Amino acid sequence: MTRLSTSLLALMTAASLSGAALADPALESRFDAQISPREMSDWMKFMAAEPNHVGAPHNKANAEWVQAQFKAWGWDTRIETFKVLYPTPISSALELKGPKPFKATLTERPVPGDVTSGRTRGELPAYVAFQGDGDVMAPLVYVNFGMPEDYDALERMGVSVKGKIVIARYGVGWRGLKPKLAQDHGAVGCIIYSDPQQDGYGSGDVYPKGGGRPSQSFQRGSVADMPLYPGDPLTPGIGSTETAKRLKREDAPTILKIPVLPISYGDAQHFLEALEGNTVPANWIGGLPMTYHVGGTPATQVHIAVKSDWSLKTIYDVVAVMKGTEAPDQWVLRGNHRDAWVFGAADPLSGHVALLAEAKAIGKLATEGYKPKRTLVYLSWDAEEPMLLGSTEWAETHADELKAKGVIYLNTDGNERGFFGAEGSHAYEHLVSQVIGDVKDPETGVTVAARSRAALQVAASKPTASAQARAEGALAADPNHDLPIAALGSGSDYSAFIGHLGLAALNFGFGGEGHSGGVYHSAYDTWEHYTRFDDPGLAYGGALAKVGGRLVLRIADSDLPLQRYTNFADTVAGYNDELKALATAKRELQKAQARVISGNLYRLVDDPQRTNGAPTPLLPVPYFNFAPLDNAVVHLKASAQAYDAALLTRGTSLSPATRARLFEMQKGLEQTLINEVGLPGRPWYKNLVYAPGRFTGYGAKTLPGVREAIEEQRWSDADAYCVLTAQALETYAARLDAAVKLITAGS
Amino acid sequence: MTRLSTSLLALMTAASLSGAALADPALESRFDAQISPREMSDWMKFMAAEPNHVGAPHNKANAEWVQAQFKAWGWDTRIETFKVLYPTPISSALELKGPKPFKATLTERPVPGDVTSGRTRGELPAYVAFQGDGDVMAPLVYVNFGMPEDYDALERMGVSVKGKIVIARYGVGWRGLKPKLAQDHGAVGCIIYSDPQQDGYGSGDVYPKGGGRPSQSFQRGSVADMPLYPGDPLTPGIGSTETAKRLKREDAPTILKIPVLPISYGDAQHFLEALEGNTVPANWIGGLPMTYHVGGTPATQVHIAVKSDWSLKTIYDVVAVMKGTEAPDQWVLRGNHRDAWVFGAADPLSGHVALLAEAKAIGKLATEGYKPKRTLVYLSWDAEEPMLLGSTEWAETHADELKAKGVIYLNTDGNERGFFGAEGSHAYEHLVSQVIGDVKDPETGVTVAARSRAALQVAASKPTASAQARAEGALAADPNHDLPIAALGSGSDYSAFIGHLGLAALNFGFGGEGHSGGVYHSAYDTWEHYTRFDDPGLAYGGALAKVGGRLVLRIADSDLPLQRYTNFADTVAGYNDELKALATAKRELQKAQARVISGNLYRLVDDPQRTNGAPTPLLPVPYFNFAPLDNAVVHLKASAQAYDAALLTRGTSLSPATRARLFEMQKGLEQTLINEVGLPGRPWYKNLVYAPGRFTGYGAKTLPGVREAIEEQRWSDADAYCVLTAQALETYAARLDAAVKLITAGS
Repeated sequence: MTRLSTSLLALMTAASLSGAALADPALESRFDAQISPREMSDWMKFMAAEPNHVGAPHNKANAEWVQAQFKAWGWDTRIETFKVLYPTPISSALELKGPKPFKATLTERPVPGDVTSGRTRGELPAYVAFQGDGDVMAPLVYVNFGMPEDYDALERMGVSVKGKIVIARYGVGWRGLKPKLAQDHGAVGCIIYSDPQQDGYGSGDVYPKGGGRPSQSFQRGSVADMPLYPGDPLTPGIGSTETAKRLKREDAPTILKIPVLPISYGDAQHFLEALEGNTVPANWIGGLPMTYHVGGTPATQVHIAVKSDWSLKTIYDVVAVMKGTEAPDQWVLRGNHRDAWVFGAADPLSGHVALLAEAKAIGKLATEGYKPKRTLVYLSWDAEEPMLLGSTEWAETHADELKAKGVIYLNTDGNERGFFGAEGSHAYEHLVSQVIGDVKDPETGVTVAARSRAALQVAASKPTASAQARAEGALAADPNHDLPIAALGSGSDYSAFIGHLGLAALNFGFGGEGHSGGVYHSAYDTWEHYTRFDDPGLAYGGALAKVGGRLVLRIADSDLPLQRYTNFADTVAGYNDELKALATAKRELQKAQARVISGNLYRLVDDPQRTNGAPTPLLPVPYFNFAPLDNAVVHLKASAQAYDAALLTRGTSLSPATRARLFEMQKGLEQTLINEVGLPGRPWYKNLVYAPGRFTGYGAKTLPGVREAIEEQRWSDADAYCVLTAQALETYAARLDAAVKLITAGS
Repeated sequence: MTRLSTSLLALMTAASLSGAALADPALESRFDAQISPREMSDWMKFMAAEPNHVGAPHNKANAEWVQAQFKAWGWDTRIETFKVLYPTPISSALELKGPKPFKATLTERPVPGDVTSGRTRGELPAYVAFQGDGDVMAPLVYVNFGMPEDYDALERMGVSVKGKIVIARYGVGWRGLKPKLAQDHGAVGCIIYSDPQQDGYGSGDVYPKGGGRPSQSFQRGSVADMPLYPGDPLTPGIGSTETAKRLKREDAPTILKIPVLPISYGDAQHFLEALEGNTVPANWIGGLPMTYHVGGTPATQVHIAVKSDWSLKTIYDVVAVMKGTEAPDQWVLRGNHRDAWVFGAADPLSGHVALLAEAKAIGKLATEGYKPKRTLVYLSWDAEEPMLLGSTEWAETHADELKAKGVIYLNTDGNERGFFGAEGSHAYEHLVSQVIGDVKDPETGVTVAARSRAALQVAASKPTASAQARAEGALAADPNHDLPIAALGSGSDYSAFIGHLGLAALNFGFGGEGHSGGVYHSAYDTWEHYTRFDDPGLAYGGALAKVGGRLVLRIADSDLPLQRYTNFADTVAGYNDELKALATAKRELQKAQARVISGNLYRLVDDPQRTNGAPTPLLPVPYFNFAPLDNAVVHLKASAQAYDAALLTRGTSLSPATRARLFEMQKGLEQTLINEVGLPGRPWYKNLVYAPGRFTGYGAKTLPGVREAIEEQRWSDADAYCVLTAQALETYAARLDAAVKLITAGS
C-alpha cells in the first residue's frame, strides 16, 4: 500500500464509520446463538452416508432434503435442473506389460473403523471426468508433475512423449493441465497418480492411523479444459437447459481426446519401477522407495482403456430466497456445492453444512421479526466436481438478471481446522477484515483476525522469511491495516460469477491444520475421517458459519456501501508493478540465456553420461507500452481515495434516496472490469483483473490479458491488453468519480 | 570485487607479466607427456586391492610400495612414523526391543560383479572412530540431521533427548557434530544412518546397477571433536612421537563419551518405523517409505553397545624430497592421504594416484636435467581418516621448520569426473585461474577454466538464480576476472598447515559428475565402482595431475612471487561486509522474534494437536565496533594494490638479489594471519581469516573469531576479535608495504 492510502486507512479505521460500526452486534449475537456444530456434524453424517456424486440416488435425495430444510426454515425454495453432459465410466483397465506384468487394482478397499468407506455400492471407480475414451498400448514416460517446465526438461533430455503414455504425479499445477499438456505434446494416454510425498506418508500417518492418503487411494476429478471455459462442454456461455443449443461432443473443445486414469501410489509403484532410461532431475523425485527414471524406452509397454457413458444427465441446484424489504432487486448470493466425488464429508459438505447453519439461523431470526433489506439467495449447487456445472449453467441461464441484480457472490467449499483465508474482490477486503475481527477462533479464543495476524507475524519473524513475508508481517502487526486477501482464480463455484459475469465475489474458509488433503476426492473423505482428522466437533465449521452469516447480513442490511476502493486500487497498483517487474525479469532472462546459447556453454557444462541439450531459445522481450495502464492506475487511485474519503466524511449525512442511488451505482461497478472480447484465446473469461491461469488452472493470474501475454511470449497481445485493461480501470474509476459527485452533491 | 581492483586486474591481465607468462610451457608439455591415466588406474587397483585402513597390513605395504616408487623415480625418501591413539572395534551391537525386535546387521555384504567388495577379511565393521565405548539401553529419538536447529525444533516440540539414544541421518553438518551435540544435550548413545534421500536411491540407481548407496551400506568415519583440534587426541599441538607427553585418554577433550554406531538405511528403517510420538517437521522427512516420527516415547527401547581397543598404533607418512637448487630452504609441499576406511579407491586413492603421477613425471624430468629452484616435498599421509593424524602430527612435529621454510601446502583428496574446484589462500587465486586455463577438460576439450566459467554462466542464466549466482556469472563471463576460489575449512590434510601454522594452502580437485558420494566410506568404494561410475579411465585423474604438477612447478621455479594480493584483499573486504550484514540480520531477527514472543503470538498460531512452544529467546544484538576491521581492510586493499602494481611495473627489472629478498619476505606472510591466542575456546586454530566452523565442521567460517561470536551470541568475543583480526590484517598489510618499498627501491 502507498503512504497516502495508508494514512487514509488509518483515518478511516479511527473514524466512527467503519464496517464494524455498520454491523448490528445484537442481531449477530442472536445469529451466533443459533449455530450448532453438533447439528452440523449430524447433517454432514447424514448427507455423506452414501456416494453422492452427480447422478447418484443419494445426491438427488440430498437435494430434496436440503430443499425441505430451507423450506422448513422459512425460505422460498425451488430446485432448478439442467441437462448436462456428464460422462460416467462403463469400463476401464490399466496394465503393465513386460517381464513384471501388473494390472492396476483401481480399487479403494474399505478401511477398518470407517463404516462409511464400506458403502461402496454405486461408488465411482478410478476415473476422471471429460477424459477422452480410448484403448491404446504404448511405452510409458514419467513426466513429473506434467507441467510446461517438465516438458522443457524432457525436451532437453531428448525424450519425446509423442505416441506414448505419460504418468504424471498430482501436485503443483491443476489436475486437468496434466493430460491436456500431455495431449498437446502428442501423448496418446495419461496416468495421474498420487505420490506419497505430496499427500501420502510424506504428509503424515496414513488413514486410518492418521489422516494421510493410504497406498490404495486415488484422486478422482475433472480434467475438462477449465482454463478455456468451465460448465457443460456442449453449452459454453449459455445455460444447459432442456432445449439449449448444444455443440456436438466431438466439437466441444474442453473435452480431452486421450484416455486418462487416476491411480494410487500402491499401483503406481509397479509402473514406475519398470521404467528405464535417464534418472530424473532432483526436483522430479517423489516419495516412493526407488530411483525414479524417465522411461520412454520401448521395453515398458502399458495398456490403458477407458470407456464412458456420454449421455446427458440431470443435475439439481437448490435455490432458497429470502426477499429483501428495501431493495429486493439487490441480491446477496451465497453458495456452496453439494455434490461430491464419493461421500464428500470435507469436500464439499464441510462448507455446505456451514451454509445450512447460516440459512437456519437467518430463518430463525426471520421468525423473530428480522427482515433483510436486500434479497438473500442461498444456493446448494450440484455438479461442481465435474466442472462447476451447477453454478456455471445457473449463472449463464440467469446472466442478465444476475448482472442487473447481483451485489456479490459469497462462496465456500471444503473447510477444516486452522487459519482463515479469503480471496476475491479487493473492494471487500476491508469488510472481510472487519468480520473476522468479530468472530472467535475456536482453538485460541482470540479473534479469527488476531490469529491470522499472528500467523503473518510469526512467519515474518523466521530467519528464512522472504522480503514479501516480512512486508506482510509488518502490515499484520499494524492494526490500522486490513489483512490482505488473495485474488480469485478458479476451482469452485465463484468462477462464472466473477470471471464471466463480473460480479463481485469472495471465497473463504479455514484450513492448514486438518488432513482432508490426504483423502481429497477419494472414498475415504468420510464423516469418520473428517471428525477425527479434519475438524473434530466441527468447531471450525461453526466459525465458518459465523463468518459467512456476518458477511451476508452486513452486506444485506448496510445503510451505506461497504466497499473500500482504496484497497482495490492499491492492490491493482501492485499488480501493475508486478507486470513491469515481470517484463524486466523476462528480458534479462532472455539476454542471459542468449549469451549462454551463443557461447555454446550448455555443451561445455553437459555431463556426457547424462546429456542435456540446450533449452529452446526464449524470444527477445520488447519494451511494452505500459503508459495506458500507468495512467489508469493513477486515475483509479485518486478516484478511490476521493470516494472513500467522501463517504467517510459525508456518508452518514446522505439522504435515504441518495444512499439508494449510491447502492445502485455500485451494484454493477465490478462489471466494468469485464470486456466482452474476453481473454486471448478464451473469450468466456472476461474479467481483465482476475482470472485462473492458463497454465495454473486453479491459481489466479491478475491483469491476466497482459500478464499471461508476457509470460507466454505473445507480445502483441501484451500491448493490446494493456489498452483494454486500462480502459476497464478507467471506466471503473469514472464510476467512482460519479459516485463522489453524487456524495458531495447529495444530502 | 571493487571497481578499482577490477580495472587493476584488467591491466595486469593485459600486461605481459602474467602468471602464465611465468610458466615454462615446454617443460609443462614434457610433464604432461608423462601422465598416464592407464597407469594411474593400475596403481589404484593395486593399492585398493585389500582393506587399507590405519593398522591394516595392506596400508603398511602400500606405504612401503609408495616409498619404493618415489625412490625409483629419483626422490629422496623416508617414512616417518608416529604413535597415535587409534581405537579399533572389538565388539559392537545394536538392537531394537519391543513388539518388532530387530538386530542391526551392521554388515556390508559383497556385491555381485565387484570382486574387491568380497575381500572382507580384515575389513573394519560398522564403526566410527573416537566415539565413547559404552553399553546402554534407552528410548530412541529421531533428531533429523542432528544439527543445532534440529535441537531447537525438538525443544519447541517438548521432546528431550536426555537419557535417550538419538538416531540422526547423515548430511547437512559434519558427522562428528551429530554425536557431539547429542551428548551435549544429554543423550546416552547415538546412531547415524545414511538416509536414501541423501546418497541412496534418491541420488540415482544404487550399486551395482548405479553408483548410489545400496540399502546395506553404511558410512564409517571419525567423530573426534575436530572443530576443537584435529590430530591425536592425546597430543594437541605437539607431534605424537614415541616419547611425546600424552594426555590421559579420559582427559582428551576430543574423544566423545557416548557410544556411537553408523548404520545403513536397510537397518535404520526398522528402528525408525518403531518410533511413535509427533510426526516430524517437513524438512525432517527422508526418503524411506514411511511417516517419520520423532519418537522419544518409553515404548521404543534400543540397546547399543560398543567396545574398542584403545592401544596406540603406528602410522606411516611417506616423505619424498627433491632439493631446490636456488632456494633449498623454500619448500613447496604437496600431499594426499593414502589410508582409507576400507579399500578407498575414490577416497583417497583417486587423488593419491594423481600425486604419484606428478612425482613420477617430475622424476622423469629430473633425469632429463630438470632441477627445481625450490625444494619439493611430496607427502603420502597415513591416518587422515581417523582425524587428519598423519598430516597433523607431522606438521606439529616439524612446526618450526615448516614455519621457516614452507611456501605453500598443496592438497588433494578424492577426485571424480566433473568440474574443477579449489579453495584456499586467496593470494593464489590468480595462479589457480592461470593454471586451469592451461589444462584441457577431458570431456569437452576446452580448458578446465573455460568449463568452470561456462558452469557459472549457465547457473546464472537460470530463472531461479540467486543474486550471488548472477554476480558470479557476470564475473565468469569477463575474461579479465579470475575465477573465484572458496575458503578452506577442514576435512583434509591442509588443516594443520593453514589453520594451525598459518602456511598458505590450496585444496583442489574435480567433482560433480561422478557417484563416489554413494559409496563414501563404505566397502563399495572400490576400483570396480570407481572405474564404472566415478571416473572411467581416470581421465579426470590425469587432469588433476596436470593441474597439481603445474602448481608445483610454477611455484617451485618462478622468478617472481606468484601471489596476487588484490585478490586476497578484495575477498577479505567481502567477508568484512558479510560480518556487518550478519550483525544487522541477527539484530532484526531478534527484534522480530521479541515482538512475536511479547505478543504471545506463538501460542496463537499453535496447532493444539501438534503443539509447539515458543523458541528460546534470542539475545538483543548490540552494535559492535567494526572500526578497527574497516580501517584494516582499507589499509590492506591499498597495500595490496600498491604491491601488485609495483610488481607489475618493476618486477622484471629487479636484480636477482632483490628478487630473492622479495621471496623471503613473502614466505611467512600468511603467518601474520595467525595469533597464538587462537580462536575462542579452541586455541589450536590460530588463523583469524580461515577456519572450520564450530557448527559446520568441514565448512569454512571466514574471519571466524568475529563471525562465530556474532552467530553464537558471544558479544564480548565479537568486539575482542574485531581488534585481534584487524591487528593481523594490519600486520599483513604492513608486510606488503615493506615489499613495495623493496621493489620501488630495488633494482
